[in-house]
Amino acid sequence: MSSSDIFLGETIGTAVLILLGGGVCAAVTLKGSKARNAGWLAITFGWGFAVMTAVYMTASLSGAHLNPAVTVGIAIKDGDWGNVPVYIAGQMLGAMIGAALVWVAYYGQFQAHLTDAEAAAKTPIEGPGPVLGIFSTGPEIRNTWQNLATEIIGTVVLVLAVLTQGLNDSGKGLGVIGALITAFVVVSIGLSLGGPTGYAINPARDLGPRIVHALLPLPNKGGSDWSYAWIPVAGPLIGGALAAGIYNIAFA
Amino acid sequence: MSSSDIFLGETIGTAVLILLGGGVCAAVTLKGSKARNAGWLAITFGWGFAVMTAVYMTASLSGAHLNPAVTVGIAIKDGDWGNVPVYIAGQMLGAMIGAALVWVAYYGQFQAHLTDAEAAAKTPIEGPGPVLGIFSTGPEIRNTWQNLATEIIGTVVLVLAVLTQGLNDSGKGLGVIGALITAFVVVSIGLSLGGPTGYAINPARDLGPRIVHALLPLPNKGGSDWSYAWIPVAGPLIGGALAAGIYNIAFA
Amino acid sequence: MSSSDIFLGETIGTAVLILLGGGVCAAVTLKGSKARNAGWLAITFGWGFAVMTAVYMTASLSGAHLNPAVTVGIAIKDGDWGNVPVYIAGQMLGAMIGAALVWVAYYGQFQAHLTDAEAAAKTPIEGPGPVLGIFSTGPEIRNTWQNLATEIIGTVVLVLAVLTQGLNDSGKGLGVIGALITAFVVVSIGLSLGGPTGYAINPARDLGPRIVHALLPLPNKGGSDWSYAWIPVAGPLIGGALAAGIYNIAFA
Amino acid sequence: MSSSDIFLGETIGTAVLILLGGGVCAAVTLKGSKARNAGWLAITFGWGFAVMTAVYMTASLSGAHLNPAVTVGIAIKDGDWGNVPVYIAGQMLGAMIGAALVWVAYYGQFQAHLTDAEAAAKTPIEGPGPVLGIFSTGPEIRNTWQNLATEIIGTVVLVLAVLTQGLNDSGKGLGVIGALITAFVVVSIGLSLGGPTGYAINPARDLGPRIVHALLPLPNKGGSDWSYAWIPVAGPLIGGALAAGIYNIAFA
Repeated sequence: MSSSDIFLGETIGTAVLILLGGGVCAAVTLKGSKARNAGWLAITFGWGFAVMTAVYMTASLSGAHLNPAVTVGIAIKDGDWGNVPVYIAGQMLGAMIGAALVWVAYYGQFQAHLTDAEAAAKTPIEGPGPVLGIFSTGPEIRNTWQNLATEIIGTVVLVLAVLTQGLNDSGKGLGVIGALITAFVVVSIGLSLGGPTGYAINPARDLGPRIVHALLPLPNKGGSDWSYAWIPVAGPLIGGALAAGIYNIAFA
Repeated sequence: MSSSDIFLGETIGTAVLILLGGGVCAAVTLKGSKARNAGWLAITFGWGFAVMTAVYMTASLSGAHLNPAVTVGIAIKDGDWGNVPVYIAGQMLGAMIGAALVWVAYYGQFQAHLTDAEAAAKTPIEGPGPVLGIFSTGPEIRNTWQNLATEIIGTVVLVLAVLTQGLNDSGKGLGVIGALITAFVVVSIGLSLGGPTGYAINPARDLGPRIVHALLPLPNKGGSDWSYAWIPVAGPLIGGALAAGIYNIAFA
Repeated sequence: MSSSDIFLGETIGTAVLILLGGGVCAAVTLKGSKARNAGWLAITFGWGFAVMTAVYMTASLSGAHLNPAVTVGIAIKDGDWGNVPVYIAGQMLGAMIGAALVWVAYYGQFQAHLTDAEAAAKTPIEGPGPVLGIFSTGPEIRNTWQNLATEIIGTVVLVLAVLTQGLNDSGKGLGVIGALITAFVVVSIGLSLGGPTGYAINPARDLGPRIVHALLPLPNKGGSDWSYAWIPVAGPLIGGALAAGIYNIAFA
Repeated sequence: MSSSDIFLGETIGTAVLILLGGGVCAAVTLKGSKARNAGWLAITFGWGFAVMTAVYMTASLSGAHLNPAVTVGIAIKDGDWGNVPVYIAGQMLGAMIGAALVWVAYYGQFQAHLTDAEAAAKTPIEGPGPVLGIFSTGPEIRNTWQNLATEIIGTVVLVLAVLTQGLNDSGKGLGVIGALITAFVVVSIGLSLGGPTGYAINPARDLGPRIVHALLPLPNKGGSDWSYAWIPVAGPLIGGALAAGIYNIAFA
């Protein structure tokens, strides 16, 4: 794959991933959405099918990593770091484009939600406001070591599933069935390990939209919770590296 | 494929699509239905599996576009507009047949719901009544540009997924696995981008049933909301064209 | 396939189908079940995966019809009625075994539910009691022609999907992917067309368990609603024949 | 397959299975989890995708039995008991590792839940406390013969589906599609037969985490319900053997 195909594929793919993933969070959160309060199953299937759609579209262009933790895991497994910067640049750009598209698609809902007097009163001036969850993850109980451990464990499951895929998928890598299996692995991580921190398991998925949240002119949006922002970056990167280590020891 | 197979396939396929898609809306909306209030997940999976069933049945006849936005996207991609009128004619006829079959399947429920005094009192004489949502989409917050943008964005995701399918599906086009993936792409769009407008993402899906709603002798049915009707036609057509443009630039 | 393999496959397959399908109805209905009130999505996915599991297990033995409407549709399509009696005999026996196994698996729950004073008081002496729904279908609104039409329409969708499967599935018939697609077609029919009558769409699925309901020594079980029993037999058989006719005209 | 690959595959696979399966139980049960009260569908899909993820990862190493009932069923079918001890040792070790990882991922939630005054008051000193359900199964209505029968019936369905898989899956055994089908068979068993006992259908899944529950320093955790512990071990083993018998008579 050429660098330009990789960059294009990762940008488009991660934009679709965050458009659909952030979209389901907007759909269940905001006033004036038909899906409001659709529940945790809707969120987890929404993110899973977001991954499926994005992987399916872009697998032929870039291999559809769409996640720096996956890129790092594959780089360690293959011992080849050459394209890592291109992958991560595309992923970060795509994540920011996707988050901005969520804002476009739900523009009226954001306005209605954030100018609502009740919502405004509940938003602390400095702390994270209620719509930050549409963009980025946050813990239910703040506990640095547990939050980091939960993100590491979830990412090990994700990246190990991706790395072992080649063993089962007749060498097609992230192809048609791979996209479907990966989708359900992501639903699984959401249902089973998403409770404590909201399962970032992807640094670009969390950091890109957080930057967009900080930049967007949303009324009463609250802070972007920057003190937490390093955990959903470091945890998934550690998890991706750990998965590659487990892979090299047990599966290679 | 012959013109008659295309017309037959699109008519049957779109009839099945709207029978099942309109059916799930009737099922969760009407009095005297076992599925009443089954929620947004039921609606989104119902529409997704409606697409799957219809695509699966008719892929061998017509390629199973079942959507003018898909037909336009494929025509732009291939530079071949020869069969476009036949496709769209079959899609519109099928959508109207499907909407009429929903009325047959839920006949008693429509009567019970619409002659209910409480429901009748809530139906404005001119505006859209509560059962229009079984036939056609409508926005939660009326905002022409946002509503149009949301329909465009949702359709870009759908048509781009369909166009890139050939890249991953070993040349089988909309075959068995393609039907399944497409179903989950539609669930994804519903969960993530359906909140503001109800995700028409298909001009035939919206306009055909709206015509049937206007024609059916339903008591207290309210207006057919014709002032909104152009948005779920124009938005998806623009989205389909845009997806073909993105495809030709990034994937071809 | 030999007659004995057909009989064995249909008996085992239909027993598994009704064990799992009746099981999910027991699970969401009865006191003392962890799944009580799990909702319509649970019922529809439960029946869909019941079909998948049963088809998957027995496709190699008998082709996994598991439904007289499918058997009749295939016989009309192929013009071969030779094995029809063996298929239907296996299906009826299997359905009765499956219903009896539901009673075994939920024995304590049936006792707790039916001896509950409140439940007993609600059960009319002659009419259908609240647990009949675990065994057989019944309409929300009694209307002979609509109820029949709804069962016909639902079965046309099911049998047409089964008949067109050979066109898409590389000649494997009801194989691995076919079992999955069929499962989601059944979920789709449940979500979209199950609201009025509970979607029997299978004469054996309804009649076999109704006989077992009449025979079982359950306290306060109420009547078996025999006056309705012909509709979920006749409707699916008409639907299966109609689907074969549509297939022969449009797809053959 | 070498003994070390079998041991490694079963240990890793069962650890992933219980991490994700126990995880979804923690997610819907504990205070301070975003998924709290997500319902029975979340639990059943959570366990199903846990099986899919674990099977998918480890099928190439050990064949991914991940369940002594499956191992016993395959041993009876093949008449080869040579690797049975290695399989079961890996499964038990993996189940205990997985249960410990659930505790790590939900550490703060366990603390918050168990030190909550209301929860503590509801926990009997000797009987099973409310968090035992995160580790092991328990019956809604205690009835030795019914509880045993329900576990046997559920396991027959599971193991018969696994044994017949080779007939349909072109000899690939538990490969990519097999992992997906098996996932939905497990969802099916959960939805349809999980109501009375919580569907252990796997001795290692129940006994391993029960031992970890007894060992962990959790406040107010209550007893580990050892008097029930033999049923989710004996029932699944009997069910696995019975499934192999049915297979050898009807399918071989």
